[in-house]
Amino acid sequence: MTPSVRVIPNAATRAVSLLRTIQYTHPPSCPCHSNPNHHHHHIPPAPTFTPRPLRTSGASSARRYATPAEPLKEYAFEMAASSIRFGPGSTQEVGLDLKNMGANRVAVVTDPTVDRLVAMDQVRQSLDREGISYRVYNSTRVEPKDSSVRHAIDWARPYAPDVFLAVGGGSVIDTAKLMNLYSCYPDADFLDFVNAPIGRGLPVDKPLKPLIAVPTTAGTGSETTGTAIFDLVERRAKTGVAHRNLKPTLGICDPLNTATMPAAVKAASGLDVLCHALESWTAIPYNQRVPRPNNPINRPAYQGANPISDVFSFHALRSTIKYLPRAIRNPDDHEAQSEMLLAATLAGVGFGNAGVHLCHGMSYPISGQNPTQYRHPGYDVPHPLIPHGVSVAVTAPAVFRFTAASNPERHLAAAEVFGVDVSRVRKEDVGAVLADAIAKFLADLGDQPNGIKALGFTSADVDALVEGTLPQRRVLMLAPALEDDVQREREQLRALFENAMTHH
Amino acid sequence: MTPSVRVIPNAATRAVSLLRTIQYTHPPSCPCHSNPNHHHHHIPPAPTFTPRPLRTSGASSARRYATPAEPLKEYAFEMAASSIRFGPGSTQEVGLDLKNMGANRVAVVTDPTVDRLVAMDQVRQSLDREGISYRVYNSTRVEPKDSSVRHAIDWARPYAPDVFLAVGGGSVIDTAKLMNLYSCYPDADFLDFVNAPIGRGLPVDKPLKPLIAVPTTAGTGSETTGTAIFDLVERRAKTGVAHRNLKPTLGICDPLNTATMPAAVKAASGLDVLCHALESWTAIPYNQRVPRPNNPINRPAYQGANPISDVFSFHALRSTIKYLPRAIRNPDDHEAQSEMLLAATLAGVGFGNAGVHLCHGMSYPISGQNPTQYRHPGYDVPHPLIPHGVSVAVTAPAVFRFTAASNPERHLAAAEVFGVDVSRVRKEDVGAVLADAIAKFLADLGDQPNGIKALGFTSADVDALVEGTLPQRRVLMLAPALEDDVQREREQLRALFENAMTHH
Repeated sequence: MTPSVRVIPNAATRAVSLLRTIQYTHPPSCPCHSNPNHHHHHIPPAPTFTPRPLRTSGASSARRYATPAEPLKEYAFEMAASSIRFGPGSTQEVGLDLKNMGANRVAVVTDPTVDRLVAMDQVRQSLDREGISYRVYNSTRVEPKDSSVRHAIDWARPYAPDVFLAVGGGSVIDTAKLMNLYSCYPDADFLDFVNAPIGRGLPVDKPLKPLIAVPTTAGTGSETTGTAIFDLVERRAKTGVAHRNLKPTLGICDPLNTATMPAAVKAASGLDVLCHALESWTAIPYNQRVPRPNNPINRPAYQGANPISDVFSFHALRSTIKYLPRAIRNPDDHEAQSEMLLAATLAGVGFGNAGVHLCHGMSYPISGQNPTQYRHPGYDVPHPLIPHGVSVAVTAPAVFRFTAASNPERHLAAAEVFGVDVSRVRKEDVGAVLADAIAKFLADLGDQPNGIKALGFTSADVDALVEGTLPQRRVLMLAPALEDDVQREREQLRALFENAMTHH
Repeated sequence: MTPSVRVIPNAATRAVSLLRTIQYTHPPSCPCHSNPNHHHHHIPPAPTFTPRPLRTSGASSARRYATPAEPLKEYAFEMAASSIRFGPGSTQEVGLDLKNMGANRVAVVTDPTVDRLVAMDQVRQSLDREGISYRVYNSTRVEPKDSSVRHAIDWARPYAPDVFLAVGGGSVIDTAKLMNLYSCYPDADFLDFVNAPIGRGLPVDKPLKPLIAVPTTAGTGSETTGTAIFDLVERRAKTGVAHRNLKPTLGICDPLNTATMPAAVKAASGLDVLCHALESWTAIPYNQRVPRPNNPINRPAYQGANPISDVFSFHALRSTIKYLPRAIRNPDDHEAQSEMLLAATLAGVGFGNAGVHLCHGMSYPISGQNPTQYRHPGYDVPHPLIPHGVSVAVTAPAVFRFTAASNPERHLAAAEVFGVDVSRVRKEDVGAVLADAIAKFLADLGDQPNGIKALGFTSADVDALVEGTLPQRRVLMLAPALEDDVQREREQLRALFENAMTHH
């Protein structure tokens, strides 16, 4: 191997620091960015710069200085996160929180499994102790469908809660967000707020009721984000609603609650964290996203990598690689469990503001189509299931091999965190090096499929997988190295699924 | 020099990662912590652990398992921050933000200087364009006093704004927070919410009106915190109000607004950022703070260093050391200006949740007493002035020489960021090494006093300085290495001020 020229030696911190300089403030140095306007200076020349938001709506009218062929790129980013409380036993404080808020009609949202665990026991004790009036909805479905979400909304609307309290994993917290949203908009059509192009993607233009989220898995980071995901069965698509106003008021992260996760759930949840971190770290920079919004309310939560999300995402990446194997291996390793819960939350803040891209976009048809009725080992559910985290991570080697050319420095910094000696990696080898590191990490965890073939997919399924991925515009628009032309994009996705059949 | 045993070689990241492990999860290893209960495991043994918040109020009743002589230590931390929008020109979006919120009585708070600058020009244009009804209060005082704050409150109460919009430095944003607070509590006594023991320190038990903050300096980070500071003249003390509910709804960080800062203001503001980062990074860990609150509403915003604040504080430290000298030297270095604004905001999130300690506690009497009517060069004000950032940084070499023994690893990691080769530093030399690095950094900036003697203080002033520091309990309680006994604490503070006479 010959020594690399552009690659920063050793310390990840220095790489990160330099990368930010390169990525956000200097002319293009990445081979794949041939467009000379692909990178922007932080502060463009003053007179032509001033971005004046227009009052009319619609994407095209937002382009003030640009012809339709050259939409204006984004120039700002916005960082929003729930308040986070972290501490073993902090679940018991929730009754006082509700009392402090003056709550007297609390909708406690959970699922049948969590309803029997220590988390719900602590919640009930705490609410009862403070004399809080509440009702429990425990019919949330793992990997919610529109039908299960509608069922939950139908329960919530007549009760008219003044506060929502979600106790569970991402499915529960996401369902509670949607219950809150559609209770506050009683006349809205179900598709009004669902992400375009599947739904109408309307912004949530008023504050919702307070939502407190108590996660019982260390995975989705849903306690900090404004995103809620579900299966829209008639469209055979995973979709959702994403707006800052959906985010919980407070996330109570209590490591005693995640201690109840079986090892398989720990692994799948932790792989979701890994991909949240890797995808948001490598998403296109916010200032390459188009179009610039015409009103700040239209700035998406998933806005591309930015200097604040970077801090969260990279930190979460380091923690996950360090602590996830320990957390799975040893249920008594409280430090590792606790650090994984923290990593999940920090990654949530990172991707909640930067977004995810290909692993997540491709995971939705993987989980949804499941052609051989695969049921993941260690999951005690009465139906076939490719857990979300598994479906996300299974394509990660192929995805990052593909995206590495868009930003070799960032991908190399990630490879270094996996323990790779990156001092002599050539730029053109970065993708392969990172892919191998991820594949090895997955293999070492145990019980992870060695590609989508192991989940029952064959080449005959690839077209359907591609068609199931294409509607995920919200995440695909953040994918580096993906081309604008839809035919070309289709080919790229097809190649990605083929390459994801087995890890090399 | 002999090689150090406990010190981590080179990469700051590794040090940080390891330090967190040491600090939060392992038995004591610091020489100054002889109390075996000084460090806590993340997850204590289950049955004795469960922290049950009590409903009765008062610090002593919070101690469930402890005798009065052994108050229970904190076991959780809470992270809250304003939403942050960052981008050059983003000030122009504020009219649409207000419109989106349905605002129709906006109190725009600024000061006479900022009222003539580009920031206020952009704000007026934006509000006028959207047809927002507003009034401007431009009489905010730099380094506010209770009288100027009362004046502002008296203006706000009859106007009864539905949204506050602060455009200016920390003084303006802090004043706007207090206008908001006391407008929402029209019957409150001025001292009700002021930090104890000077005021009654009542918690802010309901949400206030929305506050949007547009900082025009890169310093206080007030756009992200729930803290408001002012001089209480009758008590000759800097004090303030600190509660999460005071924090702005949104901080709009626009590098075009900070470009108008004179070099001297850039330097002083940036030194405030430096100390926010250093102090919050070295504050006592949250789980060594006593007492554990009896209700989460009583958990202070300044709760000690915690794993999330660490990420922010250390990142801000690196940015400040890298970019502040460039930002001061060259007003056209837009990258450095922009990075300093970002660092100020990130440091705000860090110290806003972890707190500051000795530099800030000691700065209040330094600024307030100013015995020789010192006026800092480059400040165009009609009265004597030791700028806040100058009064904070001037004691930093003495402070960190003193605190280093409490946690040599963290102090060494900080020294490394200043560019010191730390590979051969002995543990007992860490304080001196960091002090020298800070003193050199200050000297290289230019126009910084070489200690408090250069600000006009002599040994005859030390008693008054100590007495002016002692009431700052909220920050002193977070100071590492400070003793509980008030006589001993007095001696320690006296020594600190004497050592701060000149930088060694």
